Amino acid sequence: SADGKFADRIIAPYSIYKGKAAFSATPVLPTFSKLGSGSLKVDRRGSIMLKFWPAIGERKYDWEKRQLFALSATEVGSLISLGSKDSCEFFHDPSMLSSNAGQVRKTLSVKPNDNGYFISLSVVNNILKTNDRFSVPVTTAEFAVMRTAFSFALPHLMGWDRYTHQLPQSMYENPSS
Amino acid sequence: SADGKFADRIIAPYSIYKGKAAFSATPVLPTFSKLGSGSLKVDRRGSIMLKFWPAIGERKYDWEKRQLFALSATEVGSLISLGSKDSCEFFHDPSMLSSNAGQVRKTLSVKPNDNGYFISLSVVNNILKTNDRFSVPVTTAEFAVMRTAFSFALPHLMGWDRYTHQLPQSMYENPSS
Amino acid sequence: SADGKFADRIIAPYSIYKGKAAFSATPVLPTFSKLGSGSLKVDRRGSIMLKFWPAIGERKYDWEKRQLFALSATEVGSLISLGSKDSCEFFHDPSMLSSNAGQVRKTLSVKPNDNGYFISLSVVNNILKTNDRFSVPVTTAEFAVMRTAFSFALPHLMGWDRYTHQLPQSMYENPSS
Amino acid sequence: SADGKFADRIIAPYSIYKGKAAFSATPVLPTFSKLGSGSLKVDRRGSIMLKFWPAIGERKYDWEKRQLFALSATEVGSLISLGSKDSCEFFHDPSMLSSNAGQVRKTLSVKPNDNGYFISLSVVNNILKTNDRFSVPVTTAEFAVMRTAFSFALPHLMGWDRYTHQLPQSMYENPSS
Repeated sequence: SADGKFADRIIAPYSIYKGKAAFSATPVLPTFSKLGSGSLKVDRRGSIMLKFWPAIGERKYDWEKRQLFALSATEVGSLISLGSKDSCEFFHDPSMLSSNAGQVRKTLSVKPNDNGYFISLSVVNNILKTNDRFSVPVTTAEFAVMRTAFSFALPHLMGWDRYTHQLPQSMYENPSS
Repeated sequence: SADGKFADRIIAPYSIYKGKAAFSATPVLPTFSKLGSGSLKVDRRGSIMLKFWPAIGERKYDWEKRQLFALSATEVGSLISLGSKDSCEFFHDPSMLSSNAGQVRKTLSVKPNDNGYFISLSVVNNILKTNDRFSVPVTTAEFAVMRTAFSFALPHLMGWDRYTHQLPQSMYENPSS
Repeated sequence: SADGKFADRIIAPYSIYKGKAAFSATPVLPTFSKLGSGSLKVDRRGSIMLKFWPAIGERKYDWEKRQLFALSATEVGSLISLGSKDSCEFFHDPSMLSSNAGQVRKTLSVKPNDNGYFISLSVVNNILKTNDRFSVPVTTAEFAVMRTAFSFALPHLMGWDRYTHQLPQSMYENPSS
Repeated sequence: SADGKFADRIIAPYSIYKGKAAFSATPVLPTFSKLGSGSLKVDRRGSIMLKFWPAIGERKYDWEKRQLFALSATEVGSLISLGSKDSCEFFHDPSMLSSNAGQVRKTLSVKPNDNGYFISLSVVNNILKTNDRFSVPVTTAEFAVMRTAFSFALPHLMGWDRYTHQLPQSMYENPSS
């Protein structure tokens, strides 16, 4: 695309397929708005988008039934600092501050098991009268990939790479040299 | 702007709003001066700028009453290596080496609590006869964000990214290819 | 080369030469395919390519007898999270899903010793009736290099650097400024 | 300079000034040579250059009496994985493989103290009949800066950033878009 949103064009989820469900994680960069002064200000903070979808047979999964959960920077901080015996739980209401507030309740939980964690998403939707639950066992090795990749992504979700990813100043100063 | 100071144009603080005060952290890159030899030498070292401002009602904060504290690279090193039961304290005199030396005393302290740390700034100003104190409880998850973001920023504060963030040499050699 | 595959042109293995064998590690980036929508999708995931080759005399090694083992992202996650007393083992069948499935069996094992780990590769080839085994003692310091370099490389193997390594948006917006 | 050696132009040491001596650390990037195939191969591995120079009065130091010690990638690995009670020692002979082999012996030692480490360099020169020794107490916070900065630099010393620091492929493919 010509609008400079390079990042929207990349499709590189970290996906884990297990017996009852599949799960993927993808970084979503922040958006910036340009102020009158010329400054770029973070508009919408970035996140790690988690997607879960159910198995419907051997090695078959139903992508249409996926549910999403967007981890904030602080929730990512919670995950990457999790000890091997620790658990954590996050609650999201996608309709918060709207007239449907409280009608949909999403709960992500991470609980230790013998070799890693169970990562589970529950979505209770009072409007559609649905109740979806996904649980994916994530091994210690897979969680190490997530921890490393999420730590790498975190400064980018915050927009802090913009402070630093720049051409050497000398090059900019003398573009013709 | 046309002066190559990309970084000045980015506004992406990591902000934490709590009951009695708010707190934000922002990287400040080093400045370089050009030597006669063409080399770029670090002029002023970078820092992590901390800002504190008080709450004046429910979810209302008074930005005009903010106080600043610039963490040096070594102070950042102290923070990112802090154990969960450790505390640390830094003292700054913004008028050091001037005729007002000793008149303003800033103290930043980080002390463990049940779930993270209290980060507090005290500013005693003998000239204005003021005494400001801010204290923000920072959760383990929020501190993990700071630790990861500060570790990411640290080599940039030192100017070490300039040794390495460069175009592939092959591209430079053949700019027309 | 003119096809934009910069990375193929870099030769920078991390190599360890020991008494009975040598060992090297090299990152292999993922490949992307372009979708009709213009998006770039990871085609083949990246890996850390390990190579082992035997000593055939004092400080002499036989490169022709090398054997390869490509670590996946999850296997890299396993290595970088290995405790000092932990061991791990990976099995690969290079002919998996072909008519030769099961004929070649590669086993990489990492086992703790007094000062680091033994990293060993065994390749049993039932077609060629060969059985190669390499074992390289890797010191704690050498393993720390691998852990740091593999952690650095991991987001790149996954393609996650593509979400983030981009020119400052302001530059892109005003390429002529 | 017009020869593309950006990195040579940056001066950004991490320096520590203490009572009896000063100490600085600077990354030195690897050099590459171009093969007939067009590939770039690491020629000389990078290092972290340590410099020590003595105090000759209060806050006065004698830069002319400096001694150097270039840490290899593996020695950097040893430093960054050092536990708080661990020590390590490295020996270099700058004339190794020449007719002066064994005449100069450099020893770098890192030993724990109450709040960090003593980092010491001893240089015994049998030709000049000199024996220099520098010792700098490095606090836990200062060592955390070194650990973080050295970990950042390590993949660059190895040349691994060349595998990954590249423009988005889509940009390269369509430079005019």
